[in-house]
Amino acid sequence: MKFLAEIEILPKKGLLDPQGKAVTQSMPRIGIDNVSEVRIGRYITLDIDADDASKAEETAHVAAKKLLANLIMEDYQVRITAA
Amino acid sequence: MKFLAEIEILPKKGLLDPQGKAVTQSMPRIGIDNVSEVRIGRYITLDIDADDASKAEETAHVAAKKLLANLIMEDYQVRITAA
Repeated sequence: MKFLAEIEILPKKGLLDPQGKAVTQSMPRIGIDNVSEVRIGRYITLDIDADDASKAEETAHVAAKKLLANLIMEDYQVRITAA
Repeated sequence: MKFLAEIEILPKKGLLDPQGKAVTQSMPRIGIDNVSEVRIGRYITLDIDADDASKAEETAHVAAKKLLANLIMEDYQVRITAA
């Protein structure tokens, strides 16, 4: 079966996110005054072929831990849907 | 009220995603042989103060269109949750 894994990666809470801070400060310049914090990370989708959703999730976690996320500095979450 | 907006941005279908392609080709090297395509984009969260969820969503769309996404080359989607 085909699954879509969506992996969302963000800098860990408490760690500096200079890109997010710069974007937060830019908000008033585009007329937005009700955004207090912006955090910027990566969004990665994987097309996975697996027997079931839990196998697909396992593959996504292996990819995230070994290749996609830097667990020292980043947190990630995985969402699996049938494709 | 406080809302969390999650914005997921990906290169449009059909456009080159060289970073995603490189990661796809790296998968066998970490022992993964069941991932056929990887696409890499940006994941951005906004802390929004708004009267209701639809106002928060409007703010997120303005931020995405004016500042965060390049609509020529990228598609985005927005998810709003109460924070």
